[in-house]
Amino acid sequence: MKRIAIITSGGDAPGMNAAIRAIVLSCHEQHIECLGFYHGYNGLINDEFIFLTPELVSPIIQRGGTILKSARCKEMHQDEGVKQVANTLTKHQIDALIVIGGDGSFRGMMALQSDWSGNLIGVPATIDNDIACTDKTIGFASAVNTATQAIDNIRDTANAFERVFIVEVMGRRSGHIAFNVGLAAGAEAILSFENCNLNSLEQAKSHLITQIQSQLLEQHTGFVIVLAENLWPKGPHGLQQTLKDTAGIESAVCVLGYIQRGGSPCPEDRILATELGIEAVSAAKNSTGMMVGKVNGQISRHCIIRATEQNKPVDQALHSAYHHMSKLNN
Amino acid sequence: MKRIAIITSGGDAPGMNAAIRAIVLSCHEQHIECLGFYHGYNGLINDEFIFLTPELVSPIIQRGGTILKSARCKEMHQDEGVKQVANTLTKHQIDALIVIGGDGSFRGMMALQSDWSGNLIGVPATIDNDIACTDKTIGFASAVNTATQAIDNIRDTANAFERVFIVEVMGRRSGHIAFNVGLAAGAEAILSFENCNLNSLEQAKSHLITQIQSQLLEQHTGFVIVLAENLWPKGPHGLQQTLKDTAGIESAVCVLGYIQRGGSPCPEDRILATELGIEAVSAAKNSTGMMVGKVNGQISRHCIIRATEQNKPVDQALHSAYHHMSKLNN
Amino acid sequence: MKRIAIITSGGDAPGMNAAIRAIVLSCHEQHIECLGFYHGYNGLINDEFIFLTPELVSPIIQRGGTILKSARCKEMHQDEGVKQVANTLTKHQIDALIVIGGDGSFRGMMALQSDWSGNLIGVPATIDNDIACTDKTIGFASAVNTATQAIDNIRDTANAFERVFIVEVMGRRSGHIAFNVGLAAGAEAILSFENCNLNSLEQAKSHLITQIQSQLLEQHTGFVIVLAENLWPKGPHGLQQTLKDTAGIESAVCVLGYIQRGGSPCPEDRILATELGIEAVSAAKNSTGMMVGKVNGQISRHCIIRATEQNKPVDQALHSAYHHMSKLNN
Amino acid sequence: MKRIAIITSGGDAPGMNAAIRAIVLSCHEQHIECLGFYHGYNGLINDEFIFLTPELVSPIIQRGGTILKSARCKEMHQDEGVKQVANTLTKHQIDALIVIGGDGSFRGMMALQSDWSGNLIGVPATIDNDIACTDKTIGFASAVNTATQAIDNIRDTANAFERVFIVEVMGRRSGHIAFNVGLAAGAEAILSFENCNLNSLEQAKSHLITQIQSQLLEQHTGFVIVLAENLWPKGPHGLQQTLKDTAGIESAVCVLGYIQRGGSPCPEDRILATELGIEAVSAAKNSTGMMVGKVNGQISRHCIIRATEQNKPVDQALHSAYHHMSKLNN
Repeated sequence: MKRIAIITSGGDAPGMNAAIRAIVLSCHEQHIECLGFYHGYNGLINDEFIFLTPELVSPIIQRGGTILKSARCKEMHQDEGVKQVANTLTKHQIDALIVIGGDGSFRGMMALQSDWSGNLIGVPATIDNDIACTDKTIGFASAVNTATQAIDNIRDTANAFERVFIVEVMGRRSGHIAFNVGLAAGAEAILSFENCNLNSLEQAKSHLITQIQSQLLEQHTGFVIVLAENLWPKGPHGLQQTLKDTAGIESAVCVLGYIQRGGSPCPEDRILATELGIEAVSAAKNSTGMMVGKVNGQISRHCIIRATEQNKPVDQALHSAYHHMSKLNN
Repeated sequence: MKRIAIITSGGDAPGMNAAIRAIVLSCHEQHIECLGFYHGYNGLINDEFIFLTPELVSPIIQRGGTILKSARCKEMHQDEGVKQVANTLTKHQIDALIVIGGDGSFRGMMALQSDWSGNLIGVPATIDNDIACTDKTIGFASAVNTATQAIDNIRDTANAFERVFIVEVMGRRSGHIAFNVGLAAGAEAILSFENCNLNSLEQAKSHLITQIQSQLLEQHTGFVIVLAENLWPKGPHGLQQTLKDTAGIESAVCVLGYIQRGGSPCPEDRILATELGIEAVSAAKNSTGMMVGKVNGQISRHCIIRATEQNKPVDQALHSAYHHMSKLNN
Repeated sequence: MKRIAIITSGGDAPGMNAAIRAIVLSCHEQHIECLGFYHGYNGLINDEFIFLTPELVSPIIQRGGTILKSARCKEMHQDEGVKQVANTLTKHQIDALIVIGGDGSFRGMMALQSDWSGNLIGVPATIDNDIACTDKTIGFASAVNTATQAIDNIRDTANAFERVFIVEVMGRRSGHIAFNVGLAAGAEAILSFENCNLNSLEQAKSHLITQIQSQLLEQHTGFVIVLAENLWPKGPHGLQQTLKDTAGIESAVCVLGYIQRGGSPCPEDRILATELGIEAVSAAKNSTGMMVGKVNGQISRHCIIRATEQNKPVDQALHSAYHHMSKLNN
Repeated sequence: MKRIAIITSGGDAPGMNAAIRAIVLSCHEQHIECLGFYHGYNGLINDEFIFLTPELVSPIIQRGGTILKSARCKEMHQDEGVKQVANTLTKHQIDALIVIGGDGSFRGMMALQSDWSGNLIGVPATIDNDIACTDKTIGFASAVNTATQAIDNIRDTANAFERVFIVEVMGRRSGHIAFNVGLAAGAEAILSFENCNLNSLEQAKSHLITQIQSQLLEQHTGFVIVLAENLWPKGPHGLQQTLKDTAGIESAVCVLGYIQRGGSPCPEDRILATELGIEAVSAAKNSTGMMVGKVNGQISRHCIIRATEQNKPVDQALHSAYHHMSKLNN
């Protein structure tokens, strides 16, 4: 293996830079050249790239975002786009492409397999943690940290005013962030896909109202509801209206939004990114169509198809802990 | 002076606890008793209080929120409520009441002056910094820190995606937070009451669009707009729609919201709260209807009427700095 | 089970309060009373305690330190002390004692087993992570975060001055903190018990000098050495002197020290503490001489003897990652 | 003015990059070229430089350290070195040199005045805040933040163990950091040049011991002493030994050290750096031998001689607040 290419693709996540750094330093040690293409697959279509050197990547382990930029790429859904990517890789005599991103990015990899003969390796990086075959994705721990600190702040006002707060967290269609942040922030209630679905909204609502009413009577504290994005009809403002209309409960809404995506990666994400980056280079030498992951403390490789198709539920231990800590589900 | 009462009132602000601590420790040194009433003026109406001791307040200098809780109080707008407050103060033989809060809280003080003969002292605490006669209010510096860190996070994504972000910050009807945060975060544009009003919205819009279009062409970075709350018709989503409809510019919206209100106060707020708390006790001995403040590094006392009625513009130096750093106003 | 007692013992660790909270809330749900004794075993000797209620513990999930205070206790090394502890537990009709602490604290538990018939359960909490039968101890992740942020700061000066820094981190006699922090901070070298012992000091020294000299020539950056405490003769200043005497290399020393022990626990520690606290209550009902732990994502129970006697090596993946990232060991 | 040069010199301080950014952006707006020389005056001696463009400096407002590196420069104490610097400036047709640094750096400026005819402007940046003619120097507020957060962490352990901690903070020979951090952290005692000198050490010692003994008896909390560096004979370990020998008081020592120098600058420092950077460019056009500063909220220019020679005492308000909060001085 003489030359590899790297892209970061899809939603950015803290630790993407640490992964780039690990890949480049690891390649440097093994005398492999690294080309970084910009803006995900778009950079491969438009032939925008940079030679990645140890000097360039050494200081980026602690930086959020991605020095290679990121983007979604519609062209990858069409044969024409995939072919252009393959052409660019062939033109630059790339032996392997390492894709740092989430499941959309990995589907791009799979599309590319039939048009390009080089090795394709995925490194799972998304704050949503919704990729199977790895306990955590790069960026997830940092997002949980950021969101928890934000709720710690909100908690001050919630307690000072003995008020109900609805805090929307990210997660796309999974509750990994919601459950971790909810437990860590000591949220009085967590509403996510795992404990609440379209059929049980009515039930969840009436439980929630009972819980709020009983706690506000008994204790003089705030009441924080962590709400997964894309769950409640019309989002947090929908829930706010429901609480008011049904039970006369006033509440305030916070949408944490993009602050969860950025910031300096926490040590856990930097270490995970370093380990997976090293493994990705190793995997790129003799395998393709694989995602590297860390399961039960072991670095491992997994068929990319499995990683994207398999469901990844929220830890049972978290559910169980929430069940004990909260009366919502009783 | 044998006994004072303290309330925290209106929106909570980081450093309120540090002010309570300073008042209590200062009183303790001078053998003055301290009663803390809960929930602002409501606690004075409902006679809910606690004796504040050095042991209780020693460890709270670093805590956000307020151990005395806070609330708005509608009853203070009516004679009946004001009389109840006066009765409670008289009943407990309070010599002076120290009110930690913003201008709404100070108007309550003024209403109370005719019904109660004790001394009334205000300590300015609000993240909005919209109170005259003090360079900064308690909580303002911490809110600026929190909002700036949040935008540092958003910047990572903005740059990775070379995307436009509209970030709404607090400030009620003033731009202190917007200008400080905008400059500190290196925002490409700041839209606030001071540089943009109902009559100039059209102009501001076309300037902004020109600026965005020219920068996105030239440089490969994100573009962050800091928007003061209550300024733009329909808020940040209104601006987002305007940018899209008028010029086809896509953007993402973040409303920082309540995270700006909480969190451990920064050293500047802790020190200001300590200095003003000490001065408040000193002022309570021989004056009434005064607010304590810090102007040009000097601790001072000001007629509460002036403090609430006078306008407090954003520093000219900030305007000027923004003018230099941004092409928006050129 | 009607009544349990809790102590926090040995070095404090972020997350101890979260564990107390989980135990108390879990007990409350099951109608079990909780007594918290102060200052570790000393509070059991001196009969100093408090009734722990949900109201008291609800807001402490985010606080560093321990509301039950901690201490070392010499009396527990003598029969007399152990008997006094047993007497106090019997006097208060305690059914089970939950000890939150490290291996010294667990040895106290074992000593107590012959003198008291109640159930004894250990919850592993120490920043050093040197307890077997749990992947991480409570407090470890927070300490790694704090130390990494500190080195991020030092890195700024190290790079600005292109200077060598020796940073001593905690860990007692293990390298968990050193390796995690070293990797996360992108340290140029890590010196710990695992890759350096008394017999290999000479070799480590000459490797280090070669590495420093070659890097400072090639690249214009700082050089950060993470050094485990208790490793190098005369500590970091000993190493500083050695570098100067042997090779004329100037360096600066930072001893991170106690800042690693405190601060608000990170979400990972809060969640771990919550899960282990709940499990401890469950275990206390029908078992004794056990430590609760989390291994490969599963909450589990382990004989306390095994937990204290077994060695807990630093993850092989970390060693391997460091090996790749650094030329020191080549 | 067509071309200016910038150096950062002496100890690095958070906000130096924000100052560089403001200077470069301001120059760009006015069509002035900017050369950045590396390693302070050494880069001017060795002719090491970079052209500074808006693209390069735009994203550095939030970064600690200095992209221009820093260093002390012995050669500037000798005529030969000064002449070499002058030659380099002449060779590159530099119209003005802006020096970002502390008083050592400004003395270099003064030495250069006789050998070079261009304009010389100083921007005060040092965490020590020991430069007159500006209320705060760039970096000071960030250092106070970092040190206060560190003591917040230490406080957790101090309180958990009811133990005495001696925490050494930076400041060279002034107590600005010590007093601000001490007040903000709620330190029980502050020992600095301003309230303690060689003649009064005995007295300070006996006061301190009395205070510790009385507090540890009365309250169950820790006792934190903030100690200015370079004050106590043999430093914090000397004080530790004294407390033990004289009164049998055990204590723990923390030397915060270099962590105070680095990290992302706080908003206050970023804004100050931006304002002073803009003013420096403006001043460089028509004046020389001046330092820019901010006094009572006004940006201003001051003769560099006055700035370096005048003493800058710690705020009287801080002394007075400490006096009230602590019994040490009574």
